[in-house]
Amino acid sequence: MANQYETVTRSVTRRDAVDKAVGRAKYGADIRLQGMLQGKILHSPHAHARIVRIDTSRAEKVIGVKAIITGEDTGRARVGRFLRDRTILAQGKVRHRGESVAAVAAVDKDTADEAVQLIHVDYEELPAVFDSLEAMEPGAPIVHEELGTYFSLTPLHSKGNVLDECYIREGNMEEAWAQADIIHEDSYTTEAVHHSFIQPHEAVGHVDGSGKVTVWSSTKALFGVRGTICQALGLRMSNVQVIGAAVGGDFGGKGNAYLEPICVLLAHKAHAPVSLALSREEEFLCSPMRERSRLRLKLAARKDGTLLGFQSMHILDSGAYNDTFQGFLFSLDVAIGPYRIPHLDVSRYYVYTNNHPTGHFRGPMGMTQHVFATESHLDALAAKLGMDPVELRLKNRQKDGDQAHSGGTLQHVSIGDTVGAAAEYLRREKKERQKNRGWGIACSQYQTQRFRDIPFISSACVKMNEDGTVALSTGVIESGGGQHTTLAQIVAEVLKIPYESVTVFYGDTNVVPRDYSTSASQTTYRAGMMVKMASEDLRQQLLQLGADKLRTGVESMELVNGRVQVINKPTVGVAVTSLVREQGALQGTGTELRAKKVAILEEEKDIIDGPSSSAHVAQVEVDPETGNVKVLKYFAAHDVGFAINPQNVEGQIQGAISQGLGYALSEEAVTNNGRVVNPNFIDYKLRGARDMPPIESAVIEVPSTHGPFGAKGFSEAGLLLSAPAVANAVFDATGVRITSLPITAEKVLKALKQKEARRLE
Amino acid sequence: MANQYETVTRSVTRRDAVDKAVGRAKYGADIRLQGMLQGKILHSPHAHARIVRIDTSRAEKVIGVKAIITGEDTGRARVGRFLRDRTILAQGKVRHRGESVAAVAAVDKDTADEAVQLIHVDYEELPAVFDSLEAMEPGAPIVHEELGTYFSLTPLHSKGNVLDECYIREGNMEEAWAQADIIHEDSYTTEAVHHSFIQPHEAVGHVDGSGKVTVWSSTKALFGVRGTICQALGLRMSNVQVIGAAVGGDFGGKGNAYLEPICVLLAHKAHAPVSLALSREEEFLCSPMRERSRLRLKLAARKDGTLLGFQSMHILDSGAYNDTFQGFLFSLDVAIGPYRIPHLDVSRYYVYTNNHPTGHFRGPMGMTQHVFATESHLDALAAKLGMDPVELRLKNRQKDGDQAHSGGTLQHVSIGDTVGAAAEYLRREKKERQKNRGWGIACSQYQTQRFRDIPFISSACVKMNEDGTVALSTGVIESGGGQHTTLAQIVAEVLKIPYESVTVFYGDTNVVPRDYSTSASQTTYRAGMMVKMASEDLRQQLLQLGADKLRTGVESMELVNGRVQVINKPTVGVAVTSLVREQGALQGTGTELRAKKVAILEEEKDIIDGPSSSAHVAQVEVDPETGNVKVLKYFAAHDVGFAINPQNVEGQIQGAISQGLGYALSEEAVTNNGRVVNPNFIDYKLRGARDMPPIESAVIEVPSTHGPFGAKGFSEAGLLLSAPAVANAVFDATGVRITSLPITAEKVLKALKQKEARRLE
Repeated sequence: MANQYETVTRSVTRRDAVDKAVGRAKYGADIRLQGMLQGKILHSPHAHARIVRIDTSRAEKVIGVKAIITGEDTGRARVGRFLRDRTILAQGKVRHRGESVAAVAAVDKDTADEAVQLIHVDYEELPAVFDSLEAMEPGAPIVHEELGTYFSLTPLHSKGNVLDECYIREGNMEEAWAQADIIHEDSYTTEAVHHSFIQPHEAVGHVDGSGKVTVWSSTKALFGVRGTICQALGLRMSNVQVIGAAVGGDFGGKGNAYLEPICVLLAHKAHAPVSLALSREEEFLCSPMRERSRLRLKLAARKDGTLLGFQSMHILDSGAYNDTFQGFLFSLDVAIGPYRIPHLDVSRYYVYTNNHPTGHFRGPMGMTQHVFATESHLDALAAKLGMDPVELRLKNRQKDGDQAHSGGTLQHVSIGDTVGAAAEYLRREKKERQKNRGWGIACSQYQTQRFRDIPFISSACVKMNEDGTVALSTGVIESGGGQHTTLAQIVAEVLKIPYESVTVFYGDTNVVPRDYSTSASQTTYRAGMMVKMASEDLRQQLLQLGADKLRTGVESMELVNGRVQVINKPTVGVAVTSLVREQGALQGTGTELRAKKVAILEEEKDIIDGPSSSAHVAQVEVDPETGNVKVLKYFAAHDVGFAINPQNVEGQIQGAISQGLGYALSEEAVTNNGRVVNPNFIDYKLRGARDMPPIESAVIEVPSTHGPFGAKGFSEAGLLLSAPAVANAVFDATGVRITSLPITAEKVLKALKQKEARRLE
Repeated sequence: MANQYETVTRSVTRRDAVDKAVGRAKYGADIRLQGMLQGKILHSPHAHARIVRIDTSRAEKVIGVKAIITGEDTGRARVGRFLRDRTILAQGKVRHRGESVAAVAAVDKDTADEAVQLIHVDYEELPAVFDSLEAMEPGAPIVHEELGTYFSLTPLHSKGNVLDECYIREGNMEEAWAQADIIHEDSYTTEAVHHSFIQPHEAVGHVDGSGKVTVWSSTKALFGVRGTICQALGLRMSNVQVIGAAVGGDFGGKGNAYLEPICVLLAHKAHAPVSLALSREEEFLCSPMRERSRLRLKLAARKDGTLLGFQSMHILDSGAYNDTFQGFLFSLDVAIGPYRIPHLDVSRYYVYTNNHPTGHFRGPMGMTQHVFATESHLDALAAKLGMDPVELRLKNRQKDGDQAHSGGTLQHVSIGDTVGAAAEYLRREKKERQKNRGWGIACSQYQTQRFRDIPFISSACVKMNEDGTVALSTGVIESGGGQHTTLAQIVAEVLKIPYESVTVFYGDTNVVPRDYSTSASQTTYRAGMMVKMASEDLRQQLLQLGADKLRTGVESMELVNGRVQVINKPTVGVAVTSLVREQGALQGTGTELRAKKVAILEEEKDIIDGPSSSAHVAQVEVDPETGNVKVLKYFAAHDVGFAINPQNVEGQIQGAISQGLGYALSEEAVTNNGRVVNPNFIDYKLRGARDMPPIESAVIEVPSTHGPFGAKGFSEAGLLLSAPAVANAVFDATGVRITSLPITAEKVLKALKQKEARRLE
């Protein structure tokens, strides 16, 4: 069958590609305003201490210093991405090493650095806690005495340092244990990792003569930043304009707004624009990372592999501040996996400590950690059962009509397709056993539709120019996934115009329609649907205008090659450009309200349609002398619903694997009493292009009802599976199971030696 | 009666006031981009010459020069605001001193200046013509050989140098002359004047890696600039983004786009952004001025003052290039004045010469020149008749139901009100005759509605933020008239929110709805109506959402204090903010199509509703020793329909009088063989604040059906009357009539001496 599409399904070139490649893209640090000052933050040297006194007098005397602010200047407003668990600058006490205590604006960076060093703070050190289990003990130092009094989204009552408790319980665990032929129990740990975006957090703040605030931010959440600034500083939204600068990597870490209120306050005090950018070291000190975690898993099964019960306890070290969306059960659903298990008791605790703050990182809310544990655990169970790990997964997989663990009825489940593709790959690639080499598989299921129930609102507006080209206006930030390219393709497809005739305008809260954030694999799926709807609205208006002009009914009109014409009578028509010229503005909109009316019928409410499934396979070679793990081959099958831009899809898959392998094998923010001791890219080991194995991917398209052309979100799912696939492959290669991330050579070597020692015993 | 309005009718502070006052507003020359180059234009030293050869080799060798372009680099595309009568840079020949021949981009201004001087151009001089009458003679040097072949709007056939001929003929002049008791005939001349905006033309061009063009321009016509760039350079509108920088004065002169294509071509060639700003001298050399003109008028009347016939011939020196909207009869209607005259033969010619280019200047298309002549001429007739000039005007004034000279039936004519107010002022102020002092009056009528018939399209979009504040998105440029303040007031009024809760976003063609230009006194009247309509659309949506939520009918809902509530049941309602939060975008639009459907009924088509009338009175004192004319008092009555912001109205009136008095008394671009010899503000005499007389104004409000809250456009009308009012006052004071602008001391002294000589004869 010929491709029925003209623009979608084509790998058109990314719009941002050239500028980013040649260094012309404008990031936050590239913004230059006349008279612009450089800002600098003073960070706490203590993990937990009372602030007795701050003396800025020496710093103020430095020539070129234009403004200094401390917690006394920032008001009582609390900020935070979801929980509002901190103030703009520390007030009363500091809770982690690196907390922002004061900020300076000066004529240049050196002057700002000098002034920051001259601010004298008297601290009174307090007992600190750095371990999540210790923090849960009675009598542990309390990180947030005021816990429960000011959190906005999930009001909590004080439970010491436990910030959130969340669980899924089904059936009866005792029954599961009683029925089981086999019970497998183990513990897992993961370490803190940083998103390691190449561009650190950056912002510029400006306050004009009428008090209007303009902020340039390298954020992925324009409207979130505006909301935070307004709430933190008590401003009307009409007086705050947030403009998106280019984003040099996000991965979940660019959704907060901590620099921005500081910039604005400094700019206000200094009567000049202020630029503030974190250094790499500061990124590790104070911007949120993925949580360090401890997990205990217990799985019950019959000897034929039928899963009976699953119990897990997941404790996440939230650090001093928490940027996580709380209470969203879907994340536990992902943690359990795409399996039928009648008895469940899966719980998760977030615990404050005096470590660095934590927040979202591709596969957030503990998903990445838990899937590592679950998929490792399942593999260990398969080994104990003497069963093929693929077969174990296929046997227990969820099917259409099953209830999702977090509620709702699953439909168009594709986990069989992706795991099936992985099985196919293994059949082809996995020959006879080779020494020190092994294969591992892992799979998961991500329900993009789940986010419909929480306020991840999007909307879009398309405006036609006089020459028939189109401007898409969107709140979606291009965070590196090719989002704007994909959205432009959707517009071009619906309006039957060349892709090159679509421009994307995005960066300004004053004018673009609201979008929640480039988050949670929602952009193509949800924002894309809004863009499609806006384009369809515009198309409908064109058809109506053409029908009016030709005095016929709109239902007999079609849009072809820049003309509105009568179906099957191409000679009777009118040029789109002539219709547009008569209008001041011809624009279509896509909004949630319309989406609800158009797309989602009442009876579909409880249907979880077309979850995005995935399966990864890794082949590794373990060096028995050093313990080093080398990934030789990698396979990834993803159900993306519909690949609007196949190259972007491939890019997302490859990027996720690169990050996933870093998480699996090398990345770790090492801390010592709350101090990150490797806050740089020499000691913190990222994987480069040369460290990547050849990747083969299978893009599967089981369409979603609610995504544009059937597309689903899948980008986060890509990161979940590398760590367990590699851990399982290491086990397959060596017979040792590493239950602690990252799987470093040291850990493997130690395990190999222990195994050898046991063998010799 | 209590004021039924909350925001309109209030003189809220101008939004741009503080930033402009303290020097923070960002004009074109304030745009700073990384790696930005400075551009410089090479101007022709000849008025008319063939370009034999251009040698840029020496200039190219200057270190720091990044790009040089000549006519060979600019393609064959023709540019121009209405007529496309030139190329981006001269090709083949130059037609005036100062024509742009080549352009350079270099690392700094000095380098660019040096390089420009090193470009060698071989010219072959051609015979030139500098007088419009000579240019009309057979055998005169032809300025545009290709005239008639490429003009886009009014295709013309070659008539030597006559570019346009336009007339209104009614009745039969012979009859008028035959019936007349008195015929008065005289000639008038006016000189070229420059808008003298404080900020010269400025633009910055940037071409990104994907070929996308961004231009920052101090234009008043964002979309016009985009259109010109696209047409001149063959680009899609989706690839061209024009961003409006602050405009430091327009007055009709900032609607063209000559620098912008040069900037873009230089930026493209140099691979770097290029900034280009004209110096004051360059402004006088090459940017369009108001036309030098010659007029011959002949008026026939009965001895009771009844006007019978009016014949006039108006020849405008178009210079080498013409930026005027041609063929718009309305301008001749204004020229004739608000009088019943049965026999008319009024014609206007535009003639090319080798003088500097000309174009729109507040009261364009010859209106300002002609009204000076008409109102002077009428005054002379009154003197001949021994009749009070006020009475002569009132006697012959148009009334409701009269046919406008340019067609259509006048309704709600207010010329009687404004002239009446002037008469009232004179009754109060004009005491016994004082030596060397005199009073003069002039009046006019401006039909804002006329522009509905030509493509002065506007549209607007208002978007509500989550906190209930609103962003207005408009293509209207704030050119100094307080336009954005007025538009924001309209939004606030309709949506019943505080003025401070409205932000105005305007500067980007990619995203704001189309607006033709801040032109022709149309902004408050026409764009304001679109803004009102967009706000009403949003209000209606809010009412509907509220009604849906409360399960009642929309007709029973009202919007009060941020709540949608049931009329007369204020306790049953829902907060606007909660309605907005559920929507991704909540926005209303105002478009021409909707405007036509809503506001203008078919039977109203031929009605010219509510023309804006005005009457000015000047009192002068003439120094018999020097001939110097001092304006002692000034009165201006304007029918503005409805004063949305009374202070802005007052500002427009005072600004117009300031410019009008400059035109009357001192401003003149003196030329010598086409060279402007006083291209600076020392030799070209602007009037400053200290030169201004006390002004009393009467704001009359006869509402228009088609303007927001009844508002009309009146700003251009303000400039038409100072010159004739002053000329008439000089006559009243001295008995000499100065028929040539400006009314300099030399001219007055000479006339006084001639009068004295005649007396002595």
